[in-house]
Amino acid sequence: MKKKKWLSRAFGVAAAACMTVSGFSVYAEEAVVYDSMNPPIVEVEGGKLRGFMNENTYSFLGIQYATAERFGQPQPVEPWEGVKDAQVYGAVCPTNKMTEVSSDEFVWPHRYYPSNETCQYLNIWTQHLDETAKKPVMVFLHGGAFSNGASNETVAYDGKNLSEFGDVVVVTLNHRLNVLGCLNLSEYGEEYENSGNTGMADIVAALEWIQDNIEQFGGDPGNVTIFGQSGGSGKVVTLMHMPEAEGLFHKAIAESSGTASVLLEEESLKITELTLENLGLDESEVDQLKEIPYEDLLEAADAALATVKEEVGRNISWRPLQDNEYVMEEYCDFAAEIPFIAGTNFSERSSTVFIGDGRKNEWSEEETYANLTEMYGENADEIIEEFNRLFPEKKTADAYFYAPSYRNNVRSALENKIESATAPVYNYLFAFEAPVNGGVTPFHCAELIYVFHNVELPELTIATGGTQECLDMQDVVAQAWVNFAYTGDPSQEGLEWKPYSEVENGTMVFDVNSQFKVLDDQKMVDLMTAK
Amino acid sequence: MKKKKWLSRAFGVAAAACMTVSGFSVYAEEAVVYDSMNPPIVEVEGGKLRGFMNENTYSFLGIQYATAERFGQPQPVEPWEGVKDAQVYGAVCPTNKMTEVSSDEFVWPHRYYPSNETCQYLNIWTQHLDETAKKPVMVFLHGGAFSNGASNETVAYDGKNLSEFGDVVVVTLNHRLNVLGCLNLSEYGEEYENSGNTGMADIVAALEWIQDNIEQFGGDPGNVTIFGQSGGSGKVVTLMHMPEAEGLFHKAIAESSGTASVLLEEESLKITELTLENLGLDESEVDQLKEIPYEDLLEAADAALATVKEEVGRNISWRPLQDNEYVMEEYCDFAAEIPFIAGTNFSERSSTVFIGDGRKNEWSEEETYANLTEMYGENADEIIEEFNRLFPEKKTADAYFYAPSYRNNVRSALENKIESATAPVYNYLFAFEAPVNGGVTPFHCAELIYVFHNVELPELTIATGGTQECLDMQDVVAQAWVNFAYTGDPSQEGLEWKPYSEVENGTMVFDVNSQFKVLDDQKMVDLMTAK
Repeated sequence: MKKKKWLSRAFGVAAAACMTVSGFSVYAEEAVVYDSMNPPIVEVEGGKLRGFMNENTYSFLGIQYATAERFGQPQPVEPWEGVKDAQVYGAVCPTNKMTEVSSDEFVWPHRYYPSNETCQYLNIWTQHLDETAKKPVMVFLHGGAFSNGASNETVAYDGKNLSEFGDVVVVTLNHRLNVLGCLNLSEYGEEYENSGNTGMADIVAALEWIQDNIEQFGGDPGNVTIFGQSGGSGKVVTLMHMPEAEGLFHKAIAESSGTASVLLEEESLKITELTLENLGLDESEVDQLKEIPYEDLLEAADAALATVKEEVGRNISWRPLQDNEYVMEEYCDFAAEIPFIAGTNFSERSSTVFIGDGRKNEWSEEETYANLTEMYGENADEIIEEFNRLFPEKKTADAYFYAPSYRNNVRSALENKIESATAPVYNYLFAFEAPVNGGVTPFHCAELIYVFHNVELPELTIATGGTQECLDMQDVVAQAWVNFAYTGDPSQEGLEWKPYSEVENGTMVFDVNSQFKVLDDQKMVDLMTAK
Repeated sequence: MKKKKWLSRAFGVAAAACMTVSGFSVYAEEAVVYDSMNPPIVEVEGGKLRGFMNENTYSFLGIQYATAERFGQPQPVEPWEGVKDAQVYGAVCPTNKMTEVSSDEFVWPHRYYPSNETCQYLNIWTQHLDETAKKPVMVFLHGGAFSNGASNETVAYDGKNLSEFGDVVVVTLNHRLNVLGCLNLSEYGEEYENSGNTGMADIVAALEWIQDNIEQFGGDPGNVTIFGQSGGSGKVVTLMHMPEAEGLFHKAIAESSGTASVLLEEESLKITELTLENLGLDESEVDQLKEIPYEDLLEAADAALATVKEEVGRNISWRPLQDNEYVMEEYCDFAAEIPFIAGTNFSERSSTVFIGDGRKNEWSEEETYANLTEMYGENADEIIEEFNRLFPEKKTADAYFYAPSYRNNVRSALENKIESATAPVYNYLFAFEAPVNGGVTPFHCAELIYVFHNVELPELTIATGGTQECLDMQDVVAQAWVNFAYTGDPSQEGLEWKPYSEVENGTMVFDVNSQFKVLDDQKMVDLMTAK
């Protein structure tokens, strides 16, 4: 992979090596002329878009890929005259109002942003604007279950550095969520057809937009990799259960979850019924749902969801609707040919990972043993033995932070995928502890900082510690993702991955010294989940 | 002023020059050891706080300086055991919900953030943690009228670079705003005393906290400069009308406004009366105002404000209450000894400044004339003549973007301040056009990017163009602010400022070639405001 290098930046200490004239920064190595006065313009379906340069990366933010009425299916955007600005992120889908700063804000800095029901926007970062470049396209689906989140929800989701590092076209996108993306009104009239899946339909519309327009941004519509984390991972897997998504992507990565979390038809209809009831509306008044303020709609629907959750005894939340028409119960046939990576992080739980401040790494042997015994009772001894066998390079204290249930989930996801697969399936564990605040174990989301090669962003330098180890880690992780996008094989020099079908429990363990190994942690996971 | 230089950063191209070990980045020139594993801890009134290092700047964010009930006066924070984290910004004061991305987002990138009525937080950036350092303290009061905004509302408000550039202690803060900061309930019971000024009382509490604690952060409580822009500038001037603020600051800078915008007692009481009426409450039910949801309270109070505005025929908004007790009509005596800078930007209006895209700078002589004639009618000829006399280095087209009324306002603010002043009073005009998107004239807020020396932040490199001219501009502007904070005189080598009282219309014009000159633009301003 070509890694572009900057001899200098337009600013800072290195600026002396960089000739600048008004509006132009001229970089030595590749003689790229960055002309801030005349930002790049690209013509897409509908009209022209004006992006901007971020160093030598062409950046186009907030491109509207569809429009939709509340509960309606996505429609093409009206063509426009002149040049439309695509220089800032578009509005995000409404969710619950935030009144508290997120508890993980320091290690996982957010970008809170204005929300609007018109939220069908995508963002593109690329190194080329010519149609012949045909670089791999990497489309990121954000997390936040199917309830919240956005393409720009966190600083880590900025696609510029990954595009530059891997010479790939990075796309991130917003779509409808929660009651706006999942409320199943299909029984109440034709106009509400597929309303239980408007969120997934938005994603399909974005992928179609990419098929039709990404060549202008140097992308190869024939080589699209979708990747997502947590809820985004669920979206990745769900797309492989959707006939309509056939041909829209060619490779898939599921980070920290690997299953298509869905609502069943009965559940979704019950939620709708109770939502109407909570709002004091009868069936004939269903159209009023389109007019009431979002906050009231969400409140009524969230309450309905909570009631149904209790009734069905299943841990449901806002999710796509498995109607066996738009979203199938089984993998679609086309999914068999999609190379697939699924993996988890060493510590997925947030409640235990932020204790930091040197405490974990300063635990005495006695403290470690006491903590593990408190958590795992009489299984502690065996867990310690297993843990030290599996992770000889880690401290025993780290066992306290291991995420057993996620490992179980991803294992079944991989096996489930293998059943129908002809293309290879790979597994990883991201186990790198950030050298900050006494050591921050790799929490749910942490790998994305490295996947997006974003350790250098100032907020993430702070969040990770920003040491050489962090820089090395992002090179290794991002290279795996990029190589997979290019070839379907995440291997790189010195780090070969074997398909999960060939090597049972074969796992790429990302850490200070990354290695592919047989991580047969089932016994330890069973001991940890026995309670 | 010592400007610290980094031979290298912990990341990026220059990383090779930087030795790193796990958790430590060792910088060559000053041998500062940045230990991300063990963040800095400082003891303040109440307990210990854990900050973090941003390169070699000690950073403490989200320090709670007070607590308050709704409409109540700020109270000291309860002491705490152990170490409290001060690593992320605190919640901001609630305002109207944002449903649209701000139209100036590209050139003025925001940080939208969770809001909470408990919003009394301040942030500190400093180069020293020893009590003997005694560096000047620069306290920034954010803009947004008295209705919105926050200490971290925009990327430009990050204090790290100004602290590093000037070796000063930078403080930014949140306080109560709008109905929460200004609703005058003082007639309804003792507990509501001074409720019309809770916003300003929060600021006073913050300044008191700084007096009591800033030494631990290397600051000199005897040398505090307050600076603010737009609404923040109003707060700066208002503080000089408040007996309680005596001794809490020693120098003042008012950017893009220079008057203490206030509500008069009669107006404020009428707003309260109508707010109760809008909520269907009578006088005896006033306590219910403490319980109702903020959104309902704001809606009722905003409607009341709008009604009173129409009645009094004065362009009022949420503002501190001039009760002639807490906030006086005239400058307090102590203000006479406060050195003062007040200035404006070349283009304060936002509606005309974002047309960009090379258009303005590509106008033909005919187009320029047509546009100026459309705006200024028969005065266009004389305006062009005056403009070319005053700004021979600018294009005639720039006259279209000049902000005449702000110049009038600041002139009277300066003259008003001079009346009572023994300390010098200075004036500036920020006239630097950012080389981006065809040329972005210096809009309302633009100077803050340069004041905070933040051109190097990635978002602001993009927003400004990030060229050498931008870097030079931030050096000149930030140096003036820093020198003023150190000595009360903003002059620097090659750029001497004269007090406004000594040189009529004497103005420091910040531009590619900054110069102090007599900017006798009154005739042009009169022509422009004649309509």
